[in-house]
Amino acid sequence: MDTEERFGLKISDFQKRVVNDLLAIQESICNALSQEDGQNFQEDFWKHSGGGGGRTRVLKGNHIEKGGVNFSMVTGEVPPMMKGNMHPDAKTFFATGVSLVIHPKNPWVPIVHMNVRYFESDKGDAWIGGGIDLTPIYVNKDEARDFHSALKMTCDSFDPEFYVKFKTWADDYFFLKHRNETRGIGGIFYDYLKPETTNGKSIEDVWEFNKAIGHTFNKAYIPILSGNKNREFTEAHKRWQLLRRGRYVEFNLVWDKGTLFGLQTGGRTESILMSLPQFASWEYSPEFAPDSAEQETLSYLQKGFNWIQ
Amino acid sequence: MDTEERFGLKISDFQKRVVNDLLAIQESICNALSQEDGQNFQEDFWKHSGGGGGRTRVLKGNHIEKGGVNFSMVTGEVPPMMKGNMHPDAKTFFATGVSLVIHPKNPWVPIVHMNVRYFESDKGDAWIGGGIDLTPIYVNKDEARDFHSALKMTCDSFDPEFYVKFKTWADDYFFLKHRNETRGIGGIFYDYLKPETTNGKSIEDVWEFNKAIGHTFNKAYIPILSGNKNREFTEAHKRWQLLRRGRYVEFNLVWDKGTLFGLQTGGRTESILMSLPQFASWEYSPEFAPDSAEQETLSYLQKGFNWIQ
Repeated sequence: MDTEERFGLKISDFQKRVVNDLLAIQESICNALSQEDGQNFQEDFWKHSGGGGGRTRVLKGNHIEKGGVNFSMVTGEVPPMMKGNMHPDAKTFFATGVSLVIHPKNPWVPIVHMNVRYFESDKGDAWIGGGIDLTPIYVNKDEARDFHSALKMTCDSFDPEFYVKFKTWADDYFFLKHRNETRGIGGIFYDYLKPETTNGKSIEDVWEFNKAIGHTFNKAYIPILSGNKNREFTEAHKRWQLLRRGRYVEFNLVWDKGTLFGLQTGGRTESILMSLPQFASWEYSPEFAPDSAEQETLSYLQKGFNWIQ
Repeated sequence: MDTEERFGLKISDFQKRVVNDLLAIQESICNALSQEDGQNFQEDFWKHSGGGGGRTRVLKGNHIEKGGVNFSMVTGEVPPMMKGNMHPDAKTFFATGVSLVIHPKNPWVPIVHMNVRYFESDKGDAWIGGGIDLTPIYVNKDEARDFHSALKMTCDSFDPEFYVKFKTWADDYFFLKHRNETRGIGGIFYDYLKPETTNGKSIEDVWEFNKAIGHTFNKAYIPILSGNKNREFTEAHKRWQLLRRGRYVEFNLVWDKGTLFGLQTGGRTESILMSLPQFASWEYSPEFAPDSAEQETLSYLQKGFNWIQ
């Protein structure tokens, strides 16, 4: 079926190209995750009240406790919090993207998040944003290095400045101020990319970068999932996993601008909160021995750590 | 030990009276809950970076899975979000209160929250706020009526207009806009009470009202805890309880002004997030049969319901 017909939105040729790239990214990631898990994603088509809609894919699998890979293309009125970043006379926006969060069962497999998106206003100004970050329950420095190296390689093939700039941005973005902790080992984050903010790269070239990041996901994450999904774990590991998922919920509901933007602009709540884990836990002031693996992981949750060395 | 010495803050005679009333409320509630549970609260004294401190009491008990009753008296600089409600030249504030959230184990026992507080600026203007609301996992109309009746009786003994006004305020406050659901069956909520907003009642009289609400807690909640704590339940009831607790987390982290105020003004995170349950759950678009008890409860989660009739 034609994309316009399916999501009920008339779009330009470039928007069509972006949307088709995004649908292909969603497809390729879901295939890789399904193959690793042994279970298939369930698919859900939906319409957005303001116009457009999406294709949500969710997985309750053998190794993935709760995973969601969401595609959406929507239009709507420009909300107050977006005004500063758009043409001053812009009244409506077009936004499309793929967003995913994977909560694995096994505490040795990190939580992962990725988002690649494209925005345009009715005045024709456009920009690109995205990011990917890893939240290990227990930090493994080798895996952290490999994850960051995969991202750096894609960044470097477009611009030698991208990795450091976007890695620093991720450290600042995926940060729980009220805990003074990063969400995990970070990754990259970027927003408002357009010719003016990328030393004159065309919007088409910036889109190619975003698309390449989308296609870097499998390389960066699947080996970590594959290598740990069958590792043995104890009740103590599970308890720590549930507590770290509690922190994940705190970040998404208190600090994540994407989540708040969605909830405040009448987005589809079930698709936005797909990012929350099936089970999470909170304890009052839990304590861990100074030489414990839990304390070691906490010691890594700070900004500015160089994982590649 | 003297209150000033204990919390390291010099306070006026009226502030001392308020603080002693609050400590007595905390004491009486913890005693009643402990007796019902069979386990004692753990006590934790802490200091606030801006000045003052608190006495946090937490319970991991036989029937209460996670309960916290927190007293605090703190000072600090007036944050931007509070400026509109204070003397325009106010620079610092004094705030003291008791705040509690009880998460029971048994799904037949509702979650309960209460907060009574007193604010004063360095320019001498003062006001009073508070509230109490019940979040049943499964709504029981008789219990809802008794709970609201207990609150109404206390309200009526101070002002015939209070109950309806504060009940409506609670419906509006304890509301999850992104779900179009109230948090539970509500209760009462009030803020900025002072002579100008209470038909000229003195701040002393308004404080007596707040204190009386604090002392209404045991009457309103203990019978519900007592009558349901040993009821049998199934896995299906437990699943629904975890999902409703997920909604509770959503409200507290996305919409609760008290929580956001605390997290943004450098409050003590562990005491603020004491309100979160030990275990919570999220599923993608869970479905329940139209004639199920879960759907019946959902049908009650709307504003404007008259529980007393």
